[in-house]
Amino acid sequence: MELDLQQYSVRTDLAVDSREMAAKQYPDSIPGVDEEVSDKDGIKITRLNVLTDEGSQAIGRVKGHYVTLEVPGLRNGDTGLQERVTEAFAREFEDFLTLIGIQKKDTVLIVGLGNWNVTPDSLGPLVVENVLVTRQYFELMPDQVAPGYRQISAIAPGVLGITGIESSEIVQGIVERTKPDLIIAIDALASRSLERVNTTIQIADIGIHPGSGIGNKRRGLTKEVLGVPCIAIGVPTVCYASTIVNNVMEMMKQHFGKETNQTREIMGLLNNISENERLALVKEVLEPLGHDLIVTPKEIDEFIEDIANIVASGLNSSLHDAVDTGNSGAFTH
Amino acid sequence: MELDLQQYSVRTDLAVDSREMAAKQYPDSIPGVDEEVSDKDGIKITRLNVLTDEGSQAIGRVKGHYVTLEVPGLRNGDTGLQERVTEAFAREFEDFLTLIGIQKKDTVLIVGLGNWNVTPDSLGPLVVENVLVTRQYFELMPDQVAPGYRQISAIAPGVLGITGIESSEIVQGIVERTKPDLIIAIDALASRSLERVNTTIQIADIGIHPGSGIGNKRRGLTKEVLGVPCIAIGVPTVCYASTIVNNVMEMMKQHFGKETNQTREIMGLLNNISENERLALVKEVLEPLGHDLIVTPKEIDEFIEDIANIVASGLNSSLHDAVDTGNSGAFTH
Amino acid sequence: MELDLQQYSVRTDLAVDSREMAAKQYPDSIPGVDEEVSDKDGIKITRLNVLTDEGSQAIGRVKGHYVTLEVPGLRNGDTGLQERVTEAFAREFEDFLTLIGIQKKDTVLIVGLGNWNVTPDSLGPLVVENVLVTRQYFELMPDQVAPGYRQISAIAPGVLGITGIESSEIVQGIVERTKPDLIIAIDALASRSLERVNTTIQIADIGIHPGSGIGNKRRGLTKEVLGVPCIAIGVPTVCYASTIVNNVMEMMKQHFGKETNQTREIMGLLNNISENERLALVKEVLEPLGHDLIVTPKEIDEFIEDIANIVASGLNSSLHDAVDTGNSGAFTH
Amino acid sequence: MELDLQQYSVRTDLAVDSREMAAKQYPDSIPGVDEEVSDKDGIKITRLNVLTDEGSQAIGRVKGHYVTLEVPGLRNGDTGLQERVTEAFAREFEDFLTLIGIQKKDTVLIVGLGNWNVTPDSLGPLVVENVLVTRQYFELMPDQVAPGYRQISAIAPGVLGITGIESSEIVQGIVERTKPDLIIAIDALASRSLERVNTTIQIADIGIHPGSGIGNKRRGLTKEVLGVPCIAIGVPTVCYASTIVNNVMEMMKQHFGKETNQTREIMGLLNNISENERLALVKEVLEPLGHDLIVTPKEIDEFIEDIANIVASGLNSSLHDAVDTGNSGAFTH
Repeated sequence: MELDLQQYSVRTDLAVDSREMAAKQYPDSIPGVDEEVSDKDGIKITRLNVLTDEGSQAIGRVKGHYVTLEVPGLRNGDTGLQERVTEAFAREFEDFLTLIGIQKKDTVLIVGLGNWNVTPDSLGPLVVENVLVTRQYFELMPDQVAPGYRQISAIAPGVLGITGIESSEIVQGIVERTKPDLIIAIDALASRSLERVNTTIQIADIGIHPGSGIGNKRRGLTKEVLGVPCIAIGVPTVCYASTIVNNVMEMMKQHFGKETNQTREIMGLLNNISENERLALVKEVLEPLGHDLIVTPKEIDEFIEDIANIVASGLNSSLHDAVDTGNSGAFTH
Repeated sequence: MELDLQQYSVRTDLAVDSREMAAKQYPDSIPGVDEEVSDKDGIKITRLNVLTDEGSQAIGRVKGHYVTLEVPGLRNGDTGLQERVTEAFAREFEDFLTLIGIQKKDTVLIVGLGNWNVTPDSLGPLVVENVLVTRQYFELMPDQVAPGYRQISAIAPGVLGITGIESSEIVQGIVERTKPDLIIAIDALASRSLERVNTTIQIADIGIHPGSGIGNKRRGLTKEVLGVPCIAIGVPTVCYASTIVNNVMEMMKQHFGKETNQTREIMGLLNNISENERLALVKEVLEPLGHDLIVTPKEIDEFIEDIANIVASGLNSSLHDAVDTGNSGAFTH
Repeated sequence: MELDLQQYSVRTDLAVDSREMAAKQYPDSIPGVDEEVSDKDGIKITRLNVLTDEGSQAIGRVKGHYVTLEVPGLRNGDTGLQERVTEAFAREFEDFLTLIGIQKKDTVLIVGLGNWNVTPDSLGPLVVENVLVTRQYFELMPDQVAPGYRQISAIAPGVLGITGIESSEIVQGIVERTKPDLIIAIDALASRSLERVNTTIQIADIGIHPGSGIGNKRRGLTKEVLGVPCIAIGVPTVCYASTIVNNVMEMMKQHFGKETNQTREIMGLLNNISENERLALVKEVLEPLGHDLIVTPKEIDEFIEDIANIVASGLNSSLHDAVDTGNSGAFTH
Repeated sequence: MELDLQQYSVRTDLAVDSREMAAKQYPDSIPGVDEEVSDKDGIKITRLNVLTDEGSQAIGRVKGHYVTLEVPGLRNGDTGLQERVTEAFAREFEDFLTLIGIQKKDTVLIVGLGNWNVTPDSLGPLVVENVLVTRQYFELMPDQVAPGYRQISAIAPGVLGITGIESSEIVQGIVERTKPDLIIAIDALASRSLERVNTTIQIADIGIHPGSGIGNKRRGLTKEVLGVPCIAIGVPTVCYASTIVNNVMEMMKQHFGKETNQTREIMGLLNNISENERLALVKEVLEPLGHDLIVTPKEIDEFIEDIANIVASGLNSSLHDAVDTGNSGAFTH
């Protein structure tokens, strides 16, 4: 019995990665895609709305709303910046709830996907541990719940290799019994570029679409499957070796493209092949040797903890009126 | 809003504790209760079958089968003994499955109750991480599963204070979707006596009955609730301060009862009150001061890991014919 | 070879415990001992100066200064209280430095005693991880160190069972090479009473005196041994089962002593024996059975983390003028 | 004050990496370097003796003995293979002790370098926790130590960013007080190639030479500094992004060099620059952007634990005659 333990499955789906890849064809704007970018105090926020099927095809993303926060400075462990990012994330998330029509009274189930024993995959479970859950009080002593709190529950379902059950099946079972109005799913992603790892947070109302999992039996966490809307919060925590290489080749092209010397010639031929062809080339070399490893920065233990705190504190203050980012720390540990 | 986080809930239900408490009234045998004790190589095994309502009332336990392994030597971290206990537990558990009519083809959901962040309450989640789950292969590539493996899934649902959802509701949701034939629930217990903490494993076919939880809305994990049989595996990992005190007073009574001196007099009056009255007395003193803490031996980190390995390895070899205690280590991590 | 791994050694030496035990003989004041108690906002601070040999004998403590913070509310995980305790501890510690004549320019080595793998013994190593060390900058780029920072180094030497070397020998070796002006040693203690566990911090200028260790070869961390003053910061994190029992008996005596009923009689005879005789009695019962376990509250994981943060943040702001409790969090992780 | 916390410092010094880099100039043998390679059961062992200054210069390594075990299969978590590697490592280490003249009676200090909070840098501290230390028994009860045990002590000194003190200073202090005959230093390394990460163990009698640390004040762990021989055991656990890229380019060159198509042309120009020039090129692109991150495979948590067990068990059985790899597990936890 050759068992693939399947303790980890990576989805590569940052909308900003897709936007970047579509930039060659659509340098200015993509038809059917609204785009808005702000960049202040080291926090770059990109809001992409994929409105039409045409836009969806052009950018290679399903229709929906995507908000991305990019904060390269997070790599330096600056506590002041972390607080500003928490506030920005809380503000964006609250706006996002309004944008997609979530009401103050709507109940929420937070789903922390991933494996708490694999550091770069432990973001979801860590967020679950740090969000303020209240459903038990609404159930057991509803008249004693103070105003300003929303009914929240949370679950870290574990990964297929540990449970033997698809996360989506576990969540469906819980949704059927507890009837939340909204799912918020937190997940670790793979990024196309190493510099986005641990510095980027994406909010999207498209749910979680399973990647290239085994067979076609794998189910996602989407409105179609669950019957309620699902917001996905994704943070890239890993990178394929092949995409690092590919990305560097692209950077070399740009770097030496600007200069006039013999090195330009060296990289010249790379211009003749498309990015996808080049990636295929790299994979052709790496895969048979088992070298296309998924890697993560060595500081991952600290990064994951910092980002989980940002997401959990941001969710606490945007979901409960009675909590703001100043005091939300009090409810996390 | 006065929120009791309810991150921990202790059940005091070792059948051997109950047997001991009933010993005064029934020194030899309890009507309606079959009892069989073996003691070999430092492993004491007690098999109690509570057969009738009369027996149930006499011993203070619901009707069902109870097997308890007591191994005081586990406190010393002896690896050889740990291996012998693993084998004994595997043998007892396999016999137990036969006793209650579980077939080789029956599918199993293992439920690890408790909180992975509170060391003495992390036994269930630790066992879940270390059992061999196979359901994904039966689902995704059924024709490739080797003979000798049973279909197993596993879940650590988390505690009410973290999830806002009763464990029993989460498990019910999963049972409804995945239709296992048997539930095995692993749980940390409170013991009456400090010396049973981390040295005792109980197997019982009575499921999990919620303790004195908030209100009467809390549900258990029982055949009535889940529709399938539920075997509970319990290990005492904590003790109330009050039961330690009470237990010591009992030991002092016995100790000095045998001697002939003035100290006998000191303890004399304690004979005049029943154990329950004495416990009430101790609680009367401790509780208002907030002193009736739940405590655990300081070596709890190591104990929990050792016991989790014993239970996980024992389950692996008793549930899968293709695994024995010699090789089961290969499937745990 | 019968090896006692000696991975843990407990010292029972809270001065407030000693004060309490001496209370029967000296209800008001102890000759040769100055005492000052304040109690505000849930933080009780006791300052004891044992000035003379007579005082030392009366209270059973070596001559020196002892400051104890008792905060029963710490058991409830209240973040606001934790911040107030951090400030109080920082203030007391700064005063303590002045009291014993430590100058702003004096360099410090912080020693975190204990075993990072045994949760209730991991306080010292946790504090070491969270204090702001600066010695490397003074050594490698002295002209770039901003004003307001003191030269600090830190070490967690490990325990005898892990290293095979007495902590004091390791520290002596480091002191000889790095020549600090002051040692601050952080250590987990055993308390006489369960309610002081995890709610009490003691500062004393007496160093660390080894307990009843094996043989008489064990050395302490004292000015005599190290050649520089040593401040010990101790937090009780464990309790012997026997002292819990003894303590409860004492509370029962007091409780029922005030009432007039038959229960008074039950406890009456306990009055006839001294506390030490009673403790000996309890140990006589527990020890041969191996029942005199050292225990810790089940919430120890969270308690240890909270207290370590309080001590580390308090040290950071009292040792560096440039750091205050408002911003010291920025330097801890 | 701009503080570089310096919590991690990587040394790139696998002798097999150096051998590989020298292969172009010395395809068969290197003058002044003895080389012996065996490859059996998936374990490749390379024994390199750098005998002369000429050899040292040719291979770019200091004179000394280097033994490397390469086991690509370790990436798959196969427990059987792990046991065989433990045996092979123990055998090689025992031979190595003989080779460099270590006697049965010689006492040993094991030094676990690195930071236990940064997973890929925690190898040293993890090994220290799992080796059998005995020095305390030789000190405290020398007549009770059974034959077949060597006097061993162990220390995990921590990293400069945590302690403010160079590891070498801490170790020197301890060496001066405890007078061991041999130091064994365990350290995590950076590798030139991603596939060697977590699959390679190097034994060398050259001690630890500090890398490109801050200034020239940093000291190593060498016989010159410590006065006793120092064996370094190194395991690569991380890789620079730049070396991954460079390595892949090399693989692409070789891959497409064998084929006859247009892609050969694409890579053709890369042949015209040396490996070092190419690496400089890659760094020129990555560094200004802060992209030359140090990365580690995402499965690092499990890999580190497995390798630490192999090294600790191997050391236990090769250092103590009374321990073999069959029973050495009993002394590790």
